[in-house]
Amino acid sequence: MEYNSESLEKLVDQFARFPGIGRKGATRMAYQVLNMSDAQAQELAQAIKDAKTKLHRCRICQDYTENDVCRICASNRRDKSTICVVETPRDITAVERTHEYRGTYHVLHGLISPMDGIGAEQLCVKELLRRLNGEVKEVIMATSPTVEGEATAMYLANLIKPLGVKVTRLAYGLPVGSSLEYADETTLYRAISGRGEL
Amino acid sequence: MEYNSESLEKLVDQFARFPGIGRKGATRMAYQVLNMSDAQAQELAQAIKDAKTKLHRCRICQDYTENDVCRICASNRRDKSTICVVETPRDITAVERTHEYRGTYHVLHGLISPMDGIGAEQLCVKELLRRLNGEVKEVIMATSPTVEGEATAMYLANLIKPLGVKVTRLAYGLPVGSSLEYADETTLYRAISGRGEL
Repeated sequence: MEYNSESLEKLVDQFARFPGIGRKGATRMAYQVLNMSDAQAQELAQAIKDAKTKLHRCRICQDYTENDVCRICASNRRDKSTICVVETPRDITAVERTHEYRGTYHVLHGLISPMDGIGAEQLCVKELLRRLNGEVKEVIMATSPTVEGEATAMYLANLIKPLGVKVTRLAYGLPVGSSLEYADETTLYRAISGRGEL
Repeated sequence: MEYNSESLEKLVDQFARFPGIGRKGATRMAYQVLNMSDAQAQELAQAIKDAKTKLHRCRICQDYTENDVCRICASNRRDKSTICVVETPRDITAVERTHEYRGTYHVLHGLISPMDGIGAEQLCVKELLRRLNGEVKEVIMATSPTVEGEATAMYLANLIKPLGVKVTRLAYGLPVGSSLEYADETTLYRAISGRGEL
């Protein structure tokens, strides 16, 4: 046993399960819990339980919500004719931060990845197709610019285009504030071929 | 509100309170909780509560334990005549990993730091002095080689030496595997003045 007590060992094990948190980080967190007041520790444990029991997927977009339908899908200020397709709920937060997009979202909860044995049937694809009922005019593929993200976008585009819905993809190019010198060839190639008129 | 739901927001807030965990890391952790099974989330919440309710300070050394006296203080295979004084319980784990030390420990739960308004009376100093009852022959100051660690070691040495107990300090020098070229002046000076015969 690495630690002086079993309860501590168990707590460190629990924290170490989180992605990106190693043994050392987990130990720091566990000792931080011991330094908390009883009320604070109680609050933390409760927040974990609440999130797990109260949150489930939105019936429409599959993002996490406490209600039947999430805040964005329920809002009448959002444009229901555009759906932005993302891999995870975190990606919604990222797009929302731009304050540019006024349409709705659809969370796939993963990407097609044959290497990891993940096919389209494990993603929320049929939930997306069910939404294409005539009201929807455009589906924006906002999956990551990776092999899996690209493959998923292509796969979905092939399914959706025949339904007469416009399918678009996020632009590739240089990240704002970056230096041309450090851009990789593929990004630079995409930035050149996607160039726009000034 | 940054997130789509209050329960999620609350959980992210809770995780973001841990030192070294930013808003992004906390968000990743919160979504990880949502991806857990109900049983796993329950286990995590329970581990937090258990650690908080079951663990308290050892009556002797002030490390965290589930019992009245911790495993090390209770062991008859540890040398009770030597006490290694450390800042935090984490430091005990570090010393134990060397498998070199067979004495006991004492956790101060902090360092003297006038800048932060932390004086000796806020640390477990009187609990240490109470242990110097004649059986103890040596106290090793294993506080960090920082201004606060040094000041605390000096302060305690001045209290303990008059009691006829030997007080020692961890050696300063070059870290094993490091390069002389990158050693700072103070460390190198200490390594030279503390040089040993081969």
